Amino acid sequence: MKADWRSRFAENVRDYQGYPIGKTIQYLTDPEIISLAGGLPSPKVFQRTELRLATERAFDRDIDRIMQYSPIPGEATLVDAVLRFLERDNITIGRDNIVITTSGQHGLDLTGRLFLEPDDVVLVDRPTFAGAVVAFGMQRPRFIGVNIEDDGSDVIGMRQQLERLGRKGTPPKFIYVVPDFQNPSGITISIAKREALLDLSYEFDVPIVEDSPYRDLRYSGETIPAIFTLDQRRDGDHVIGLYTFSKLFCPGMRVGFNIGPPEVVTRMTHIKEGNILNTPKWNQDMCLAFLEDMDLEQHLENCRSYYREKLDVFLETMAEYFPPETGVSWTRPEGGLFLWVSLPPHIDTDELFFEAIEHKVAFVPGEQFYGENPEHNHMRINFSFVSKEQLAIAVGRLADCIKKRL
Amino acid sequence: MKADWRSRFAENVRDYQGYPIGKTIQYLTDPEIISLAGGLPSPKVFQRTELRLATERAFDRDIDRIMQYSPIPGEATLVDAVLRFLERDNITIGRDNIVITTSGQHGLDLTGRLFLEPDDVVLVDRPTFAGAVVAFGMQRPRFIGVNIEDDGSDVIGMRQQLERLGRKGTPPKFIYVVPDFQNPSGITISIAKREALLDLSYEFDVPIVEDSPYRDLRYSGETIPAIFTLDQRRDGDHVIGLYTFSKLFCPGMRVGFNIGPPEVVTRMTHIKEGNILNTPKWNQDMCLAFLEDMDLEQHLENCRSYYREKLDVFLETMAEYFPPETGVSWTRPEGGLFLWVSLPPHIDTDELFFEAIEHKVAFVPGEQFYGENPEHNHMRINFSFVSKEQLAIAVGRLADCIKKRL
Repeated sequence: MKADWRSRFAENVRDYQGYPIGKTIQYLTDPEIISLAGGLPSPKVFQRTELRLATERAFDRDIDRIMQYSPIPGEATLVDAVLRFLERDNITIGRDNIVITTSGQHGLDLTGRLFLEPDDVVLVDRPTFAGAVVAFGMQRPRFIGVNIEDDGSDVIGMRQQLERLGRKGTPPKFIYVVPDFQNPSGITISIAKREALLDLSYEFDVPIVEDSPYRDLRYSGETIPAIFTLDQRRDGDHVIGLYTFSKLFCPGMRVGFNIGPPEVVTRMTHIKEGNILNTPKWNQDMCLAFLEDMDLEQHLENCRSYYREKLDVFLETMAEYFPPETGVSWTRPEGGLFLWVSLPPHIDTDELFFEAIEHKVAFVPGEQFYGENPEHNHMRINFSFVSKEQLAIAVGRLADCIKKRL
Repeated sequence: MKADWRSRFAENVRDYQGYPIGKTIQYLTDPEIISLAGGLPSPKVFQRTELRLATERAFDRDIDRIMQYSPIPGEATLVDAVLRFLERDNITIGRDNIVITTSGQHGLDLTGRLFLEPDDVVLVDRPTFAGAVVAFGMQRPRFIGVNIEDDGSDVIGMRQQLERLGRKGTPPKFIYVVPDFQNPSGITISIAKREALLDLSYEFDVPIVEDSPYRDLRYSGETIPAIFTLDQRRDGDHVIGLYTFSKLFCPGMRVGFNIGPPEVVTRMTHIKEGNILNTPKWNQDMCLAFLEDMDLEQHLENCRSYYREKLDVFLETMAEYFPPETGVSWTRPEGGLFLWVSLPPHIDTDELFFEAIEHKVAFVPGEQFYGENPEHNHMRINFSFVSKEQLAIAVGRLADCIKKRL
């Protein structure tokens, strides 16, 4: 007898599909396609030699412990190294403010699971990070989005939403932002708007979840303090920080961390315990080696130069192919891996995607980056993975299929 | 201003504590304590050399891919090796029946998350695996337990519960069992009872979740077919299998897998995608090497001999210290890492635990292995980690503090 499985599934996940991006990428098997779709850091900046040497050292020192269970909150050596990593950035916290995660995605899931019930509201930018929508989505919240501006979140629009939601008795559980070089838009939140977000957080007593995967990948302009730092300066405790080393070192390591008030971090650690137990020690040891056994600042500077050049090529080529009269516009990020191209409203980038593939170029349709009510005339572009030469060719191919529709 | 965090947490996890065992183990910092409390495989059987060699080979072949994202369902090479691993055990499935997990705990969590809503019923043995209670517990189900018997689940008692629950309109979402050398009791479900469980599964249309972490660690007696195999022979699809390589190779790898019907496995893969994305490739490569580049059967046979001797020492020493008239009884497992000691009902092993620590010996109080209504006069004993000599000394120390209370 055959079972009817679907009817048994929990409502939260009965129709859950994971990442829509994953389903997009399956179309990209043709090796001639230049893909600006993934979110991949370039293997050109991977520290292969350090990985090999650090592995040998870790095996010599600790192979039995590498093969055994390890502490749920993270290896003490890595935790302490991360605390030092954060001090560079004017964030001073203790061991009871941090839990090591098995990647940024895991950090997002721990957050969603800790706070969200079905129909709870999460206040986000429009567009926002698809991975957050996917992680939080397993708890079936409602996303309320406010259109992002060139200097970050629309704090006036967010205030209006907070007032409206307050009147309805459904205040958001938290505000989710990626303040530095947001995925997908590349936009950075200005210092004034970070302070204004904190004002909103205190006034409406709504926590801020600050997701910072790219913060150390700044190619131009001045570093702006993390919202976490600004909160500390104001003696608040309204901010939870999510971090991953996937973009700074390599995604294959699967190591990140969450920071916040002890009661939040402790509960996240309990959830992690029931969810996967511990992050594997070898992976943590590799992260520790990248942080402390090599020249971290030199590595980051190399990454910045490498990605900065690619970004410049992309922006210059876009300017050549799309003069202002085409109505095509794009963001000019100061860091990160992504930017956002907006086409005239009549062009649907879902349809364009399949035509682009025939032209051997790929992007992610913008509609995947909305918690609700998506717009359809945007593209997310990743400029970190393919070579400068390929980036220039890719823009030409995009122009071929976009210009037909202008 | 300071936030009131607790009131914001989702009800499912507001008071969630993770593993009670973890909180027990914090008392064991004194190195003179002989701990029979953990669930640790012995480093004596760790394949350190293979880990080093396999790492070198993997780096030579694949270092860029090791450092990059990898497929959510698992590396195809590992998936295929696991399919061959299962064929040894008369389980023949395809790639769409399996998802690689980041440990057995992760496999349990994917299962709980896929099926359970608050107040859903899970039918379990009494006692049952604490890690399952902890993983499923994040969905706040109700556990209904039926006392386990020497030859496994009490299928008559389970039938009565299924009838009762059916009349109430609250049939269980699934039956959860660890058929081989159950953690904590060491009990194995007989072939007749496995068939009877399947009968119940079909008659009441309730799936079975079969958790098999220790199945290859049989020290005596004949291997009994997995319930998954029996279900396949009867052309059913009512069984989901959960596996981990933590006890066969090493826990530090954090690799396991779930098997089942494609619609179940696909949905678990989607949840994994939102939850942690991928299992890291190095960890999967190590698992692949243990499965295919070394002599797997020889390794398993070594583990069996090594653990068999320890089990024998423990059982013999127990018989010396606790003759029948003491009213102390214990299980005699045919494999696995654990057994179950039952004391006269007036002895509370929670209290005994702290006295035992003063006697420099530790176990896990039995009450941690119940989904509801725990009994308090049992101890879970792990016999795999400490040496034979220490095992004998540990039994003597246990006898010292138990006999005072008889």
